[in-house]
Amino acid sequence: MEVDEVVCLPRLSRVAVCGGTHGNELSGVYLVRELLKVKKEVMEEEEEEEPLSVLMVLSNPRAVQQCRRYVDTDLNRCFTHATLNGPTSGDVPYELIRSRELNATLGPKGSSAAVDLVCDLHNTTANMGLCFIAYSDCDWICLHIFRHLQRKMPDIPMRYIHFEVSNKESYSLDSVGKHGFAMEIGPQPHSVVRSNIYTAMKDGVQHMLDWVCFFNSGTIFEGECVDVFTMIKHIDYPRDSETHNITAAIHPQLQDRDFCLLHPDDPLFQTFSGETLRYKGTEPLYPFFINECAYYEKGIALSLARKRRVMIPAIRVQTEQERQAAAQESEEEEEE
Amino acid sequence: MEVDEVVCLPRLSRVAVCGGTHGNELSGVYLVRELLKVKKEVMEEEEEEEPLSVLMVLSNPRAVQQCRRYVDTDLNRCFTHATLNGPTSGDVPYELIRSRELNATLGPKGSSAAVDLVCDLHNTTANMGLCFIAYSDCDWICLHIFRHLQRKMPDIPMRYIHFEVSNKESYSLDSVGKHGFAMEIGPQPHSVVRSNIYTAMKDGVQHMLDWVCFFNSGTIFEGECVDVFTMIKHIDYPRDSETHNITAAIHPQLQDRDFCLLHPDDPLFQTFSGETLRYKGTEPLYPFFINECAYYEKGIALSLARKRRVMIPAIRVQTEQERQAAAQESEEEEEE
Repeated sequence: MEVDEVVCLPRLSRVAVCGGTHGNELSGVYLVRELLKVKKEVMEEEEEEEPLSVLMVLSNPRAVQQCRRYVDTDLNRCFTHATLNGPTSGDVPYELIRSRELNATLGPKGSSAAVDLVCDLHNTTANMGLCFIAYSDCDWICLHIFRHLQRKMPDIPMRYIHFEVSNKESYSLDSVGKHGFAMEIGPQPHSVVRSNIYTAMKDGVQHMLDWVCFFNSGTIFEGECVDVFTMIKHIDYPRDSETHNITAAIHPQLQDRDFCLLHPDDPLFQTFSGETLRYKGTEPLYPFFINECAYYEKGIALSLARKRRVMIPAIRVQTEQERQAAAQESEEEEEE
Repeated sequence: MEVDEVVCLPRLSRVAVCGGTHGNELSGVYLVRELLKVKKEVMEEEEEEEPLSVLMVLSNPRAVQQCRRYVDTDLNRCFTHATLNGPTSGDVPYELIRSRELNATLGPKGSSAAVDLVCDLHNTTANMGLCFIAYSDCDWICLHIFRHLQRKMPDIPMRYIHFEVSNKESYSLDSVGKHGFAMEIGPQPHSVVRSNIYTAMKDGVQHMLDWVCFFNSGTIFEGECVDVFTMIKHIDYPRDSETHNITAAIHPQLQDRDFCLLHPDDPLFQTFSGETLRYKGTEPLYPFFINECAYYEKGIALSLARKRRVMIPAIRVQTEQERQAAAQESEEEEEE
């Protein structure tokens, strides 16, 4: 790729904004409800089709109803190819049924019928600001949207997190779209809605949709650099070998310091009797999801990431001519 | 009462420290577990009886197991005389059974067999610091303990909240003791443990137990003044009349400002469409429990209190002679 080359990418015609994938992460729940209400009002007033199709989805309505993360199993781990396409028998968990419904509506995952972009809304109890979480560090669409939000919302700490997982193994709802990311905002206790976090999410979604409109209408987005945090490993709490109960909490000097470099021998945990346990790794890494409520049961006290700078190229939408050429090329490839 | 009079009160022989009354308020859960472990170790080493009997109680073990506030119904609303003594039939909620077990162990409520002091440990998502919550504004024991903690822990914001409810109607676990209060600490998301909050609770409980030992050994505590916040009313979220869903969150200018005077016309809520709703009351009052997670279902967005200064007298423990005289007097009263 030459430095000045502009990468041409297909138009983003269908975008899904999903909330309530975890039923007790309330910013997304209330934002999706609000956007549905506004959309209905706009539709009723204008009665004309929108140039961009935006689907607003309440992903796990039963969990939302009960204000719990999930009813039977974590919905946001159900979108692997294996789980979506495997056999079912006996008592099928509600979330497994729901994941297939969502895959039918927004996917099928990996197919040309899938929506172009999925933005799945999440909250965390960790002090993470606004994060994009994606499976790719070379999805130029997601990365450019991220940069757009960074510029438009300078007061909100913002990071791009990369989970290095293949498309087949990717497990979350956003993996169903052609492009996708989770928009994770915190700190907010689960089952609580805080105005500042709600507003940040509302603004983030609006800027994302604006960007998609700019992109579709032919704007050229210049190439630039983005800091990407690639997840390296998780660290669990110290636990009692018999009861499996945790025996320590995140150290007060680490609590709320997501994305502040953790050095070897830095305090990591404080046991309930008052002892300090230190980070035994040899490489300084960036901690995140520090003390996330929902991860106690998953055995994760925090995650650690390596930071690196990624060059993203200039991009613009394909012209109609380019689209037809690309379609023909792809047809020919299939014939071969 | 003359200014210099010292009020003599019975010795506090049995104290209960309860955690996990709400199963997802984790500071108390882990603190009670830790104290039980330490106590066991001490007992094993020393094999002698403690001068003060301290009962450590995990109040709702099933809810703790499931890391939920409660299993069937809120345990901490089950301790009215009516609920403890009423008939039961059919499917009895687990917490109702458990409340009677606890009443048998720590009470019976209102009887001379009840423990002398119950300290029930709680967490809140509200930014309340450390609060005592009690049904009395003239329980000199609770008020003196509160002043002791204020002096010993100057870095922790500390308030005394008074719920004006008769002993018969009082509903919470701490009402089972002869004296009792809830120690409420926040902000902490439910189902999460934060070191700073855990440590504040641990220190608070230790200072309380120290005070009880000082008191029992004859220390005179001087009379002084305490600010008491008496609960006046609750305010619910604005809600959709059909769905009953909330339509607004606590206003960002009010969030986290517990115990900062709320004036008429101050911002109260921000609707999900961005509108500001204001406080329509005519009297400036002190807000607390602002955006407490567990109160969404109870229809409480915040509570309001009036502050006043209470004079508490000097107190000391009764001498053995005074105790016998008091016992005889009470016997004679019963005979009349």
